[in-house]
Amino acid sequence: MKVKIQLQSARKGQSTTNLKDIVQKKLEMLGEKFCADIDRGSFPAIRMKSRSTSNIFYSQELRQYVLGDATITRSSRNIAHLRPLTQMIWTAYFVHELIKQKKTSTLRDVYYSAQAYDIFFKDQAESDNIITDLETAIGHPRESFNVFPEERSAVFGDLTIEYTVPGYEGRRLNLSSHPDGVMIGPALTDAKFIETSADKVIVIEKGAMFTRFVEEKVYENFNAILIYTAGQAPRSTRYFIRRLNRELGLPIYIFTDADPWGMHIAMVIISGSANAAHLTELTTPDAKWAGVWASDIIDYNLPSDRLNDRDIKRLKELKADPRYGDSHWQRQIDIFMKIKKKCELEAFSRYGLTHIVEKYLPERLKELEA
Amino acid sequence: MKVKIQLQSARKGQSTTNLKDIVQKKLEMLGEKFCADIDRGSFPAIRMKSRSTSNIFYSQELRQYVLGDATITRSSRNIAHLRPLTQMIWTAYFVHELIKQKKTSTLRDVYYSAQAYDIFFKDQAESDNIITDLETAIGHPRESFNVFPEERSAVFGDLTIEYTVPGYEGRRLNLSSHPDGVMIGPALTDAKFIETSADKVIVIEKGAMFTRFVEEKVYENFNAILIYTAGQAPRSTRYFIRRLNRELGLPIYIFTDADPWGMHIAMVIISGSANAAHLTELTTPDAKWAGVWASDIIDYNLPSDRLNDRDIKRLKELKADPRYGDSHWQRQIDIFMKIKKKCELEAFSRYGLTHIVEKYLPERLKELEA
Repeated sequence: MKVKIQLQSARKGQSTTNLKDIVQKKLEMLGEKFCADIDRGSFPAIRMKSRSTSNIFYSQELRQYVLGDATITRSSRNIAHLRPLTQMIWTAYFVHELIKQKKTSTLRDVYYSAQAYDIFFKDQAESDNIITDLETAIGHPRESFNVFPEERSAVFGDLTIEYTVPGYEGRRLNLSSHPDGVMIGPALTDAKFIETSADKVIVIEKGAMFTRFVEEKVYENFNAILIYTAGQAPRSTRYFIRRLNRELGLPIYIFTDADPWGMHIAMVIISGSANAAHLTELTTPDAKWAGVWASDIIDYNLPSDRLNDRDIKRLKELKADPRYGDSHWQRQIDIFMKIKKKCELEAFSRYGLTHIVEKYLPERLKELEA
Repeated sequence: MKVKIQLQSARKGQSTTNLKDIVQKKLEMLGEKFCADIDRGSFPAIRMKSRSTSNIFYSQELRQYVLGDATITRSSRNIAHLRPLTQMIWTAYFVHELIKQKKTSTLRDVYYSAQAYDIFFKDQAESDNIITDLETAIGHPRESFNVFPEERSAVFGDLTIEYTVPGYEGRRLNLSSHPDGVMIGPALTDAKFIETSADKVIVIEKGAMFTRFVEEKVYENFNAILIYTAGQAPRSTRYFIRRLNRELGLPIYIFTDADPWGMHIAMVIISGSANAAHLTELTTPDAKWAGVWASDIIDYNLPSDRLNDRDIKRLKELKADPRYGDSHWQRQIDIFMKIKKKCELEAFSRYGLTHIVEKYLPERLKELEA
C-alpha cells in the first residue's frame, strides 16, 4: 500500500538550515578565538584532533573509522606553523564568505581563489589538506561550508523537496519530474524534504541499470527512490543518502557489480573511508549491500569473468579490513576467492531485460526485509 | 530583450518522433531484404560502406570525417561471413524490439542480452563492432535505436520540453526546474522542444563552472541554456546540442580548459570523431570554441601550469589534424607551443569568484557575436 507521507514540520529541513547556521557560528567562534588570543597578548593558536594514521581507529559502535584522542596544536609562536595556520585562517574566512554570500565552490576553485587574496599554496594538494584540517577543526564535512565535489550523480523518485538556494527559496520540485534523473548537487544537498510516498531507497552503481529501473517503474512497483552513483558515490551523494535514511527513516539498499570494487562502493556509503575518519556525517551504517553478491553468481547462474590479480589482491585487503568484519561480508569474500569469478549488474540481461526487476529484485528485497 | 518563443507546431519534435519511425522502418526493410533473398533462393547478404581507415576522409563541406564510396558485402555464401552476419541480424532484431517496446539499453547490456538468445559474442568489443556496423547500414546513431551511453551530463535553462517516453507522454518540464541540472539521458534525447526564451547555448566542461554559471544567473543575464559535459561530451549530449542548434537555431558556445584536451572536447562537439565517420547526426559544425584560449592565458594573465610531454605530443597531432585547419585553431595551437603553458577554467577565480561571469564571459560573447 502506498501512503503519501507529509513530513512533520518539526522534521522538515531541520538538518540543513540549522546545519549552515551552526557551521557559520563555529567559523565565527574560530575567528573570535584568534582575536582573543591577540588581545590577551598571546600567540594565536588552534588545537585539533590529529589525523595521523596512528590516531585512526575503527569504531564498532559507529561502524566507521574515527579519530582517537591525540591532538595537535598549530601555534603562530612556531615559525614552521605560521604558513599552515595562516592558510587555515584564510580558508576559514573564505568559506565563511561562501556561506554568507550563498555561493558554492570546489577544491580546485578554492586553490585558485586563494591567489586573489595573495595567499600562497604550493599546489592543490596543499590547499586540499588545509580544507581537511578545517573539516577536522569544525567537525563538519566541507559540503557544509559550501565546498562541493566536481562529480555528480542523480536521483529519481517520489520525493518533493523545497529549495533553500538563492532565487529558488520556497520553490518545490518532485524528484520524479525527469525520468533521466536530476543531479545531486549543491541545491539538492541543501533542500528541505517535504513529502514522499516512498518506503525505501535503492542505490545503483550503473547508469544502464538506473535507467532500466526507471523504465520498469521500480519507483512505483517497489515504492522506491532510486539513486545513481556513477561508480564510487561522490560525497554529496553519500550525505544525501544519509539524510534519506536519517530524516525520512527509509531503509537503503545498494546494488553494485559483484567484484571487490563494487563491494567497496557499497561499503564506503555504509561505513565511509579512513580519509574521512574525522567526519561522521557521510556514512549510513544501516544501509545494506543488496547485491550482486558472489553467491548470486552461482545461485542465479550469471555470466561471469575470471578475477584478475588486482581483484584478488584487493579481496585480500578487504578480508583484513575492520569494516568487513561482519560474517556476511566475510562469507562473500570467501566465495569470491573460491569461485574466482566476478560479474556485472548487466549480467542479468542474459535472461532478458526485465529479469533483474521481475525476479532478482523482489526476491532480494524480501530476503533483506525478513 | 527576452522573448518567449513558442515553437511552431510544424517544428515541434519533428526530428525525434519521426526519426524513431524512420529507423524502425529501415530495420524492417533490412529484415524484408533478407527474407526476399531467401525466397528468391539466393544467399542473404548485406552491402554497406567500408569503415576501414583507407575509406575515412575529412569533408570540408560537412566539416567532419565521412566515409568514402568503398563498400563491403557480407554474404551468407561466405563461411567467414556467417558469424558477423548472423550477429548483425540478431542485433537488428533486438534493437527493433527495443524501439517497439519503448525500452532502452547500453552497449554492455546488449552484449549480455545476446546470451538470452544463444547468440555468441567472444567479448564486448565484438558486439560493439556489430552495433557500429548496424549504425553504418542504417545510417543513424545507436541512440536512434535506443542504445544509449552509460555516461551522463546535464542541462539547465529556460526550455520547456515534452516527454515521449512511456508513462510520461505529454508531460512537460521546464529545464530550469532544478538548479543542479537535469540529466541528459534517453528521456530528454527523445523529448519534443516546446518553448524557450533562450537565444544561445553555453556548453561547459567542468561541474564547478556549470554550478558557478547557474549561481551567477548566466541563464537569465545572458539568456542562455547551460550544458555540463563532464569532460568529453557523451554522444547523447552531442546529439542534444545538435538539436538545440538545428531545431531552435541557437548559437552554441563551448568553454573548456585551455589545453589540447579541452580544445578537443570542443572539437568533438563541433566536428565529431573519425570513429563516427559513418554518422552525421552527432556533430554541430557551427558551434564555436569560446575559450579558454591559449591567448587568454596571456591576455587575462591567468595562473597556468607548464605543458608536459604528453600535452606537447597531443598538440603536434592536432596541428596536423584536418579538423584543425582553420586559422583560429592553428593560431591557438601555435601560441600553446610558444608559451608552453596551459590553464583551467577555474583559474579565473584568481580574480574572484564572479570574474569569469562578470568580465570574461561578456567580453568573449561580444567578440564572437561580432
